[in-house]
Amino acid sequence: MTGPLRVALLGCGTVGSAVLRLISEQSEDLAARIGRRVEVVGVAVRRPDHHPDVPADLLTTDAEALVTRDDVDLVVEVIGGIEPARTLLLAAFEAGKSVVSANKALLAEDGVALHAAAAKAGVDLYYEAAVAGAIPLLRPLRESLAGDQLRKVVGIVNGTTNYILSRMAETGAGFTEALAEATELGYAEADPTADVDGFDAASKAAILASLAFHTPVSASDVYREGISAVTATDVSRAAEIGCVVKLLAICERVAGSPDGADGDSVAVRVHPAMIPTSHPLAGVNGAFNAVYVEAEAAGQLMFYGQGAGGEPTASAVLGDLVAVARNRLAGAAGPAVTSYAGLPARPIAETPTRYHVSLDVADKPGVLAAVAHEFAEHGVSIATVRQDGHGDAATLVLVSHSAPDAALSATVEALQEMPAVRGVTSVLRVEGLT
Amino acid sequence: MTGPLRVALLGCGTVGSAVLRLISEQSEDLAARIGRRVEVVGVAVRRPDHHPDVPADLLTTDAEALVTRDDVDLVVEVIGGIEPARTLLLAAFEAGKSVVSANKALLAEDGVALHAAAAKAGVDLYYEAAVAGAIPLLRPLRESLAGDQLRKVVGIVNGTTNYILSRMAETGAGFTEALAEATELGYAEADPTADVDGFDAASKAAILASLAFHTPVSASDVYREGISAVTATDVSRAAEIGCVVKLLAICERVAGSPDGADGDSVAVRVHPAMIPTSHPLAGVNGAFNAVYVEAEAAGQLMFYGQGAGGEPTASAVLGDLVAVARNRLAGAAGPAVTSYAGLPARPIAETPTRYHVSLDVADKPGVLAAVAHEFAEHGVSIATVRQDGHGDAATLVLVSHSAPDAALSATVEALQEMPAVRGVTSVLRVEGLT
Repeated sequence: MTGPLRVALLGCGTVGSAVLRLISEQSEDLAARIGRRVEVVGVAVRRPDHHPDVPADLLTTDAEALVTRDDVDLVVEVIGGIEPARTLLLAAFEAGKSVVSANKALLAEDGVALHAAAAKAGVDLYYEAAVAGAIPLLRPLRESLAGDQLRKVVGIVNGTTNYILSRMAETGAGFTEALAEATELGYAEADPTADVDGFDAASKAAILASLAFHTPVSASDVYREGISAVTATDVSRAAEIGCVVKLLAICERVAGSPDGADGDSVAVRVHPAMIPTSHPLAGVNGAFNAVYVEAEAAGQLMFYGQGAGGEPTASAVLGDLVAVARNRLAGAAGPAVTSYAGLPARPIAETPTRYHVSLDVADKPGVLAAVAHEFAEHGVSIATVRQDGHGDAATLVLVSHSAPDAALSATVEALQEMPAVRGVTSVLRVEGLT
Repeated sequence: MTGPLRVALLGCGTVGSAVLRLISEQSEDLAARIGRRVEVVGVAVRRPDHHPDVPADLLTTDAEALVTRDDVDLVVEVIGGIEPARTLLLAAFEAGKSVVSANKALLAEDGVALHAAAAKAGVDLYYEAAVAGAIPLLRPLRESLAGDQLRKVVGIVNGTTNYILSRMAETGAGFTEALAEATELGYAEADPTADVDGFDAASKAAILASLAFHTPVSASDVYREGISAVTATDVSRAAEIGCVVKLLAICERVAGSPDGADGDSVAVRVHPAMIPTSHPLAGVNGAFNAVYVEAEAAGQLMFYGQGAGGEPTASAVLGDLVAVARNRLAGAAGPAVTSYAGLPARPIAETPTRYHVSLDVADKPGVLAAVAHEFAEHGVSIATVRQDGHGDAATLVLVSHSAPDAALSATVEALQEMPAVRGVTSVLRVEGLT
């Protein structure tokens, strides 16, 4: 092979256009870094007339024919969604082409099968752009930390929800108001479900957990709560205890298995949580993303940057493109993703978490004792309590120690039934407290 | 090759011992991730009797014989310093062994020759541990960002000086006092010169710049100022303008060449600077390290973690060990480090910087005009001025716009000569202001 490396691009929206532009603008640098020129030989789109900037002879609507063409060396997939992307990737592998993808949903749903198909064909499947856009994250997890044991990966991996929560903290606005602002400014899509309900973050959590723990984790293994129930009260209660509210993707290796067997299990969850302002993730505001990692030997690490947008995502795609191209020229595939550990998934009910609970209670003797008794009944111990009286009412703010999530949620249900409790005004998990 | 991968370890101090321990503790995981067991077959040390924990039959004082032994596949070098490390690495390459090194001084002095020798032999030279310990940094720069154009890399890469500056900010202590505390707590070595005078950071800056700009940069190309001249006044002046003082390693691609030719040049420097508290690096305190990156497409990125210590450094060494081992099993070397760009080094005098200057002046009409005139005379424009009167004296605090460093230092010299200026109380460069 002495000619250029020939690339088929599937999809030409915001990310695809940026990929095309970068390949063209940086063609000399790419050639120097790879040792071969890069040439885009076809761009598959649904509506060719929507892409006046792309040379007409490159455009095709037949993506399947494009990925199997003999004159294609590498495939870049930025269509997103499950189908037709999955079929196209499998066809590409079968035809011996390596693939660079930015498709978090597909990788989270079907990563194991796709990796197996790529390995069988002896080609590469890289997808740095699928999680946290431009932030180099999957390569560090796959390679830099390959000699270490990861304990925990906690990410702010969705820019839309982080923007909304940041604005709620800054302005005191409620969720609906902050979402409206985010939509107006283009930070939220017209249908924001995938972002605000945590589906996007759950896909990314599944990918991160799979790589971090060498264990197959799919989106359906991820417990998921979005941010639409987060209230202005939650945000101000967080501030009172020196915390901020973030939507976190948490991937954790927990001692013990759900079935009581020896060995560790993997708990993966996405939900809003209070974290202390001293935590490295607390300062990650607006549309920025960051992922915090705890490893046995490396200790605490954090990766920070832009998690979305055409250019940042295209930067990640091109980094993978260079790697895959170099591998192809070296005649070898990159290191396969291993899932040898096969740790069982731990359901949220059995995952240790901590809760913050704010209650409106009658301000009379014995209420705190009764509330504390309810916690104890469920085997949950209390870390801190604050009580503020105002007239005949009082506010009780409690933060629990770590306990199985089911015990904590049962405690909250029981509190709601107590005659002395007039209302549970805020319930949110707490992360990162020491 | 069906037996284990056989490793020779050169050096067995803090890092080497941690490498040995991790290889042993994680032997099953390493085997699963590499596809082959890892076995340490020899440990070269100067004083075998100082290493009672290492099996005696592994210890040798003849490092050169060890690296060329037929039963050695990979060499891990954690001796540090230029010689004998350089000779040993070259001997290892010649014998066809890949090398993992943590040796920043050697890589910064002689990286080009070492990379050439490794490439000629078709083997790998990896050294993630040489910069910022456990933080995955070199692999992201070499690989993840290989499709992007880097503009700037700014690092807090020396834990000792960051600890000292953090303590000065927290306690108001002067440099000498903070250094004494750092020494007592083990954050500074008995001879702290390499750290406090910026030599350690300069080596790391050279390595970062080489990778970021695909250009050979050695430690002698790096402008260097340490922190021993940083005063408590500098630190409090910084706080007054919403900044903190950090020792920064700054690698920058600047438009234009020093000889007036077209094309860019590379400016690499290590010096204390004020940065705004809103900058992602400002919150990096104590012995932590972080590196901030600006890339054309990816935008702003930051990598944060522990920059030193046996375990974190060993984590980086083991990540490289896994990569090198996988490459060897795949029968291919990893991507070579390219220095095709060959950009000229830009001397500090011609590097654009910004200065903060605090002056004690006579509080009488015309002084500010005279001071401003001095700046203008040197072609430096002023961004902000604050004047505080107290009795017959006043304090003038000025922050300049960007100008060639030589013009700024000449301005300061001229200010010192002005009759109305009673003293220049603080001069420090400013980074990251918008």
